[in-house]
Amino acid sequence: MALIVQKFGGTSVGSVERIKAVAHRVAKWRGAGYQAVVVPSAMAGETNRLIGLAREIQPSPDARELDVVAATGEQVTIGLLAMALQSLGVAAKSYTGAQVRVLTDSAHTKARILQIDEERLRADLEAGIVPVVAGFQGVDAAGSITTLGRGGSDTSAVALAAALKADECQIFTDVDGVYTTDPRIVPEARRLRSVTFEEMLEMSSLGSKVLQIRAVEFAGKYRVRLRVLSSLTAPDISIDEESASGTLITYEEDEKMEQAIISGVAFNRDEAKITVAGVPDRPGIAYAILGPIADANIDVDMIIQNASVAGHTDFSFTVHRNDYEKAMSIVRKVIPHIGAKDVIGDSKICKISMVGVGMRSHVGIASKMFRTLAEEGINIEMISTSEIKISVVVDEKYMELAVRVLHRAFALDQPQ
Amino acid sequence: MALIVQKFGGTSVGSVERIKAVAHRVAKWRGAGYQAVVVPSAMAGETNRLIGLAREIQPSPDARELDVVAATGEQVTIGLLAMALQSLGVAAKSYTGAQVRVLTDSAHTKARILQIDEERLRADLEAGIVPVVAGFQGVDAAGSITTLGRGGSDTSAVALAAALKADECQIFTDVDGVYTTDPRIVPEARRLRSVTFEEMLEMSSLGSKVLQIRAVEFAGKYRVRLRVLSSLTAPDISIDEESASGTLITYEEDEKMEQAIISGVAFNRDEAKITVAGVPDRPGIAYAILGPIADANIDVDMIIQNASVAGHTDFSFTVHRNDYEKAMSIVRKVIPHIGAKDVIGDSKICKISMVGVGMRSHVGIASKMFRTLAEEGINIEMISTSEIKISVVVDEKYMELAVRVLHRAFALDQPQ
Repeated sequence: MALIVQKFGGTSVGSVERIKAVAHRVAKWRGAGYQAVVVPSAMAGETNRLIGLAREIQPSPDARELDVVAATGEQVTIGLLAMALQSLGVAAKSYTGAQVRVLTDSAHTKARILQIDEERLRADLEAGIVPVVAGFQGVDAAGSITTLGRGGSDTSAVALAAALKADECQIFTDVDGVYTTDPRIVPEARRLRSVTFEEMLEMSSLGSKVLQIRAVEFAGKYRVRLRVLSSLTAPDISIDEESASGTLITYEEDEKMEQAIISGVAFNRDEAKITVAGVPDRPGIAYAILGPIADANIDVDMIIQNASVAGHTDFSFTVHRNDYEKAMSIVRKVIPHIGAKDVIGDSKICKISMVGVGMRSHVGIASKMFRTLAEEGINIEMISTSEIKISVVVDEKYMELAVRVLHRAFALDQPQ
Repeated sequence: MALIVQKFGGTSVGSVERIKAVAHRVAKWRGAGYQAVVVPSAMAGETNRLIGLAREIQPSPDARELDVVAATGEQVTIGLLAMALQSLGVAAKSYTGAQVRVLTDSAHTKARILQIDEERLRADLEAGIVPVVAGFQGVDAAGSITTLGRGGSDTSAVALAAALKADECQIFTDVDGVYTTDPRIVPEARRLRSVTFEEMLEMSSLGSKVLQIRAVEFAGKYRVRLRVLSSLTAPDISIDEESASGTLITYEEDEKMEQAIISGVAFNRDEAKITVAGVPDRPGIAYAILGPIADANIDVDMIIQNASVAGHTDFSFTVHRNDYEKAMSIVRKVIPHIGAKDVIGDSKICKISMVGVGMRSHVGIASKMFRTLAEEGINIEMISTSEIKISVVVDEKYMELAVRVLHRAFALDQPQ
């Protein structure tokens, strides 16, 4: 009997009616002979409400106590969902993270899972019971309640699937899979039957946010078969490669051998660009600029330094748009000390990336991308490449146009 | 250093502002040198909201899962209260029932406490930390979350005080102590400096609901010094017999030696009276009538059978008004089998009781009570007595009048 772990996000369990709908969905898989472990998030809005209460008490609440409060969101959902399953005649039993026991480190509000005791869950499964396990939470060695941070329920589901050696971990969300790009921008965007973990990582971090990055990494590490499915439509009750709904995230490249070079076009308009112009080209400059940025806890995404001309170079990097003003003021303070000429910032940019494992063994992708953009008069401000992606920064007003023309140029609307 | 356990009800922690006020109150006791363990209820309305959600899923939800959902109410409060204490510079740490470990039986939604591991709390106290423990909840031997039923937070506080051998268990509520009767009915009603456990039990069950009966019984069994205090006013920071605020519940009769005969006038209009008239006076009749009532899970309060006249007697009992119709229909089915003449019911009654341990050694209380009521033209329908109380049933329209005249007749408005 195949075992699946099914994770439902906050919107999927956002009301009593939707919790009942999730129970019906789980009951169908049970009826088709699957063993199931269900991992719900808190009801939509509940985690924010709880954290809001805590911040009213204290603007920077103690992390241990914040976890105690925040963890109740999922605890409510597991109880309600277990009841809903029981009312459909499906034997079910709820577990908090501590009850399972999902052992984590003690990094409250962003804990990492260390170990999962799967004995109780396995005994339930053998007895025909559906365990309903609270996502997003665990317990540390001292017995304190921990949470895994935002989106941690995906990670919980993957970790449970790994511990139970489940046949598949299904993430039900409000999209029915991973698309070649955002269908709101390109109506011809096509659902991918499968993507590799690496592609998925790039797609997540670049804007097509379907899954939490940590969950995808976790699944890759433990080789958990991960599928993204819609909680709004009625997917086929199957985990078969050919007939299953959604998008399968694979970890073996072989599985992708027949696939297209490019999987999709990702984009992100949350970034801002900072360029330090006329930097003397000598050791320690990159550190002199980025050290103070890191000290201020500002994450840096792209970093580009051009070849030196006449002993000077231009040094550019991108940060989240929310950190832009802060980063600019830090850099302005630094430039007199390093003898740079100027600092130029631009927060009206966007990043567009072609993603695909096929890119590794094929030449010409980059030139085709640049030519396509040039034909539309779109100026490229920065370029960065990795083994499986090419990213460019362009003026944000061109974002939709750029995504559409690239999607068409690489024939992503055609079946794989 | 004296150790106190302080329990705050749902209204006392009903908002962020009130939680902060509770923290200030606890901080004052800490500042005065007391060690404190704090036991809050869920925020007012929260438990009802959670149970309402569960009933929307399933009208009769599984008791284990209902406890999982309901227990989150107190879990939110302990986290918020610990934060509020910390923001005042008071070291504090929250514990769920399972974390303490408050071991209970497995009777979900009405579990009984079996044992409390107090080591962690004691270690905190020694380290100067205020443990904030969730009331109302525990964990069974299998690790399932349990709740103690409505008002169970009082019981949690008393049980913790017993386990920690605390110097006093303080129940903060919206009244500032136990009164000779309800001040809304008799403005001259006076706060009692102390009452015995037995009196308190009678006062609670008869309508002056300040404390949960189970908590009072528990305190009596383990000889916990229990005090009722107001969470609205500013009680004196003292547990000294003479200067402390509120009402102390004592277990030793000696402490009451100087006190008045009568402690108070309790009343209750939640009952209804059922009389089976003309019952053949033979063995087994009481069981024949009350057996089916008990089988239907209807609680019976007063039971009275008059002396037999010509081989027939009248048999009366009272039930909660909500159970009146059901009880009447059960009795109507029974009477043909036992040869009774008729069944007469009345749901427009009330019960009024004089309560006091002094009553035991004094005669004339009953006659004075009956004369006082007769002088006002109030007809007594039923009478029942115990060692420390005399209860009468009268037409409910006389309730306020009866309470006022009895309060005056026994000079309860005069200092003890």
